[in-house]
Amino acid sequence: MPNPPTKINTNEIAQNFLNKFDTFLFDCDGVIWSGNRLLPNVKEFLEKLRHLGKQFMFITNKSTIPRKQFVEVFKSFDIEISIDQVINSAYSSAMYVRDVLKLQPGKDKVWVFGECGIPEELNLMGFKTLGGVDPRLNEPFDAATSPFLVDGLDEDVRAVVAGFDSKINYHKLAVTLQYLLKDKEIPLVGADADRVFPERGRVLPGAGPMVESLAFQSGKVPTYCGKPTMNMLNVIVSSKHLDKSRCCMVGDIMEVDIAFGKNGNLGGTLLVLSGVETEKSLQEPKEGIPTPDFYAENLGAIYNLLK
Amino acid sequence: MPNPPTKINTNEIAQNFLNKFDTFLFDCDGVIWSGNRLLPNVKEFLEKLRHLGKQFMFITNKSTIPRKQFVEVFKSFDIEISIDQVINSAYSSAMYVRDVLKLQPGKDKVWVFGECGIPEELNLMGFKTLGGVDPRLNEPFDAATSPFLVDGLDEDVRAVVAGFDSKINYHKLAVTLQYLLKDKEIPLVGADADRVFPERGRVLPGAGPMVESLAFQSGKVPTYCGKPTMNMLNVIVSSKHLDKSRCCMVGDIMEVDIAFGKNGNLGGTLLVLSGVETEKSLQEPKEGIPTPDFYAENLGAIYNLLK
Repeated sequence: MPNPPTKINTNEIAQNFLNKFDTFLFDCDGVIWSGNRLLPNVKEFLEKLRHLGKQFMFITNKSTIPRKQFVEVFKSFDIEISIDQVINSAYSSAMYVRDVLKLQPGKDKVWVFGECGIPEELNLMGFKTLGGVDPRLNEPFDAATSPFLVDGLDEDVRAVVAGFDSKINYHKLAVTLQYLLKDKEIPLVGADADRVFPERGRVLPGAGPMVESLAFQSGKVPTYCGKPTMNMLNVIVSSKHLDKSRCCMVGDIMEVDIAFGKNGNLGGTLLVLSGVETEKSLQEPKEGIPTPDFYAENLGAIYNLLK
Repeated sequence: MPNPPTKINTNEIAQNFLNKFDTFLFDCDGVIWSGNRLLPNVKEFLEKLRHLGKQFMFITNKSTIPRKQFVEVFKSFDIEISIDQVINSAYSSAMYVRDVLKLQPGKDKVWVFGECGIPEELNLMGFKTLGGVDPRLNEPFDAATSPFLVDGLDEDVRAVVAGFDSKINYHKLAVTLQYLLKDKEIPLVGADADRVFPERGRVLPGAGPMVESLAFQSGKVPTYCGKPTMNMLNVIVSSKHLDKSRCCMVGDIMEVDIAFGKNGNLGGTLLVLSGVETEKSLQEPKEGIPTPDFYAENLGAIYNLLK
């Protein structure tokens, strides 16, 4: 039996927590912000870490925007970060296509189901992409007239990458299926398997249900590249030289963020209750879902203890 | 090992086939019609059956229109049938809600993800429905302004029924999720689990991937009411008094239609190759998928043998 999670609720526990780690890997939604609102004292907490010489990165399953746009979002909250502090599932999916599937930029193409993050990260690597946010996909679907079908499928497409799409529609599902069935070798790469994400006190459908829907209709087993998979960790490890034992994963979803830290043998994990999970989900953990080493109401609460 | 399927390719085999059965249960799409085109000699084949005193019904997983609209479709092909010759998955889902879930018409409400077949069949039984083809669901989703969320969820909703929706969008997925998570007891009823359906030489995504997507995001296990489930067969058996040993299921998908006939211990099964399956899928059956007793190119080919 693992130890029960330690609640960070005194200055001493907060200090000890910080001392155990050199690098903090933060999830964003439900940890740093909620919807488009920065959570209280997050900026101050990050400044404190910077002041203490700690390193930090943002590891997010949000694939809808490219990394450079995350930098802009942080900037809008008056927080300066660099692009190499961000690894999202759009980027890890693109890395997987290039480095694991060994597709060739400039030659092989990728069909995308998802928003602009995935095609932009793939384009940056030199891959031509089809689908994604092409506005013609927003037209009602007709198999006889869809511009993606009338001239046949693009023979150079060698993979399908799928992520969250808030404009999911039948045209996108139907054409994506044609590419998945085009040939047995075409893999289905899922940006992330998140079932839901938090917004305004609710949970809303995530990327996972969309990718699983494509998997069900095509009979293909998706390979996911977001948390909690090791495809995501490999991208971090290959781009940084981290001492994993001195890394802490901070997130709001046990089956995603905490599982990521545990699967990856990171030094520690912190769950914050400012997103999907509640104190109740900690007390009644689901089978097979790891519990965190530490938990706190939110990052601001830890900051307040450190003052 | 079951016997290999008998190909109906002589007058004698065709006569023997007809003599074995009193009742024929036909799938529609890929058997009677393909898209909006009646398949050749289907009308003549049905007239032949009528002439021989055979009974026949149409058992379809298409939930997008109510039974009475099927009667109209047949009429448009100059084929007269009665409403009680049609059982579709919208009707079997409504029957399941009333007779198995024991929801009370006039009191309990149902949230629908799907087209008009499901709400119309439920309404006919006296159930009030929400969702479905409500045009407000076609507006872009915003959790703060969705008319389905601003005043809270309807407390009288006791079940979610989901089927194929060619206008699938995020608004529908997101509100359906709220109803599924409203309380632990709310069941997810799936009209049918069809992965794909045939159209113009392609296969397109079916209801199954949509229901499975809702299942994945909510963590609920769907109960399906279409073929090949016994929920569908129970509806047929309870409305007709059939000698199952003299019934033949005729369809174009092995894992749906032929499995339905086999699971239900019907007297026989006929696969036609005018829909999803090809001669190749018969020669290379997938594990766990039953093979038919008989097969033929299409119903018209049998008719031609009988002339």
